[in-house]
Amino acid sequence: MTTDFAATRALFDLPDGITYLDGNSLGPLPRSAAARVASCVTDEWGRLLIRGWNKAGWMDQPARLGDRIGRLIDAVPGTVVMGDTLSIKVYQALASALEMNPARRVILSDTGNFPSDLYMAEGLCRTLGAGYRLKTVAPEDVLSAIDDSVAVTLITEVDYRTGRRHDMAAITARAREMGTLTVWDLAHSAGAFAVDVTGAGVDFAVGCTYKYLNSGPGGPAFIYVAPRHAEAARPALSGWLGHEAPFAFDLTYRPGAGIERMRVGTPPVLQMAALEAALDVWDQVDLDDLRARSLSLQDQFIAGVEERIPGLTLATPRPHPLRGSQVSFRHPQGYAIMQALIAEGVIGDFRSPDILRFGITPLYIDQDDIARAVDVLARIMASGAWDRPEFHHRAKVT
Amino acid sequence: MTTDFAATRALFDLPDGITYLDGNSLGPLPRSAAARVASCVTDEWGRLLIRGWNKAGWMDQPARLGDRIGRLIDAVPGTVVMGDTLSIKVYQALASALEMNPARRVILSDTGNFPSDLYMAEGLCRTLGAGYRLKTVAPEDVLSAIDDSVAVTLITEVDYRTGRRHDMAAITARAREMGTLTVWDLAHSAGAFAVDVTGAGVDFAVGCTYKYLNSGPGGPAFIYVAPRHAEAARPALSGWLGHEAPFAFDLTYRPGAGIERMRVGTPPVLQMAALEAALDVWDQVDLDDLRARSLSLQDQFIAGVEERIPGLTLATPRPHPLRGSQVSFRHPQGYAIMQALIAEGVIGDFRSPDILRFGITPLYIDQDDIARAVDVLARIMASGAWDRPEFHHRAKVT
Repeated sequence: MTTDFAATRALFDLPDGITYLDGNSLGPLPRSAAARVASCVTDEWGRLLIRGWNKAGWMDQPARLGDRIGRLIDAVPGTVVMGDTLSIKVYQALASALEMNPARRVILSDTGNFPSDLYMAEGLCRTLGAGYRLKTVAPEDVLSAIDDSVAVTLITEVDYRTGRRHDMAAITARAREMGTLTVWDLAHSAGAFAVDVTGAGVDFAVGCTYKYLNSGPGGPAFIYVAPRHAEAARPALSGWLGHEAPFAFDLTYRPGAGIERMRVGTPPVLQMAALEAALDVWDQVDLDDLRARSLSLQDQFIAGVEERIPGLTLATPRPHPLRGSQVSFRHPQGYAIMQALIAEGVIGDFRSPDILRFGITPLYIDQDDIARAVDVLARIMASGAWDRPEFHHRAKVT
Repeated sequence: MTTDFAATRALFDLPDGITYLDGNSLGPLPRSAAARVASCVTDEWGRLLIRGWNKAGWMDQPARLGDRIGRLIDAVPGTVVMGDTLSIKVYQALASALEMNPARRVILSDTGNFPSDLYMAEGLCRTLGAGYRLKTVAPEDVLSAIDDSVAVTLITEVDYRTGRRHDMAAITARAREMGTLTVWDLAHSAGAFAVDVTGAGVDFAVGCTYKYLNSGPGGPAFIYVAPRHAEAARPALSGWLGHEAPFAFDLTYRPGAGIERMRVGTPPVLQMAALEAALDVWDQVDLDDLRARSLSLQDQFIAGVEERIPGLTLATPRPHPLRGSQVSFRHPQGYAIMQALIAEGVIGDFRSPDILRFGITPLYIDQDDIARAVDVLARIMASGAWDRPEFHHRAKVT
């Protein structure tokens, strides 16, 4: 397949005058999502009412959409299911993995992980007691820190701040060698480049859909369980929709078949509708094309900034294999600079303490967007226009 | 206030020819919700993109809408927050309550509880180990089973099958006397009648919004924590949005102020928009009026059925104080009878093994609806029209 990125761009409803480099935080609105959500509200909820669970397929949607995401991460059908938030899915995966490795007590993660993953692990260890603990090392030390004390690694493949990418295959191989299970957080991977959970031998994977998968604010998360663990993984969050027979209303829990047991409560049907529409875009995308174009746009951006703008330090690794699909620069006044950029219609975001992040999402951004972003950034930096009081005012959400 | 129920009915988009008696499972579409969701998708997500978190108030919505639900259950502002599903909120409340009562190991519930609550308790006990266990008794034995071994009671106020209502004040008072904490599941209470968590001295309460609160399929759940526990309750599901400073991205968890710590991950913004619109209806409703009308419609329905239809046995208690806002009958062929009713446009639902459930929701049903439901049911039962093969075919979701 040769992907037509002008065609994919046309599938998104992008506001005029905006260069959107924040799709690594919240993807833009796919045009078809508006109609799909409206139909879900008006025709399904409105007309079918309770019958929507059967007639509109609401009940099967978490598995059906899970399979579609499975194709983007090389998971076989029946191994991915949607629901809840990424933090909840992290908890589920970790709890199952720890139970499957009962002689060990250590969760290994790294300081580049997204904090919520660490917090969820911390909470789980506290609940488990019995010596369970979370050990965090520097990202570059993960591989060597995997030893026979580690029950499970909890690693986010791509660093949310710098875009630095871990070597999933190497870490997973080392973990398997050491008898350690792996939980991979694909928040900045799924839809950013081809992931191969099957080929790497990953045990569990989780991710969100509102970044590179464009499902909208608060879209559902996903969880993958390797087929070899399907019947062994026992959910700690044992909700009724993960029961073998939810509508039998038994008083005791029996885990459902395979991945179904990772469902918990009632799925968010309106968010699922948006996700369903957003996933259609992927039918015309070749992930190798996507990766090639992402790297080319990243390189264009890095070269443009480094050529024209002194004072910004590249935070993203230079070697392609070490990159995700974002480019980050450091600057002590990063927050104000980013606000000034946003005021000019170039939207990226800021991560404490000094990181300017730019999502490079070829589905809907192109060379002109990158050129414009570099131009505007160069102008703001040269003029000092970022140093105005309003740009230093910290909003609640950064 | 005198509530104008013809006016509230006009706020809902009810399909022609349908008598909807399943609002205890999924409330119908409030007319304003369609426009509100569309605007959230197109104007907020579409135009504001990532800026929606600040500019459209997405980040504060869980607390803002929590306060609006707080008014329906007599919770003071700042004690209710939205998010996740009811099962997750049950887990959070239970885990916090158990940790606050560390010398005890028993969760007490009853066999009339919704199974997911029991399953979540079971999963939590398994994760905690250390002798934690779930003890279930018959609903009528709850009060006497609360002794000084019980760490926490987990009770759903209204039985999802029969509509039998527990005495929240008495059970909570007994629990406090015995040093037991209470978790009340208000799934069939909030929006069904006035609840007074403050007056009853409830410790934790949880509920969903897609039944009597009409937020749409998969709408977010809520959790209430009594103000006296606000700083003591420690979340087991310690997600980043429950952190004291989510955007500081610290590596260790510090619980946020009060109820904010019960947030976990990114809120489902589209579902929140639907909920927000749905809550507007309540601004013109007096809960005493609602209760009076609900009981009157229930009595009309019970009298009609008992007068005209032999073979159906009332499953709902007769005394008003023992009722929620639904009426249930038993019949060995309940499943097929319900399918026949639905085929005639009278929508209730079925709960295994033999329960026909009818939600009595005065916001949008009236005496004519009840009269029609009785007529159609009488006709189906008299003619035996329910006994057709297609009505015996069990759908996935009942």
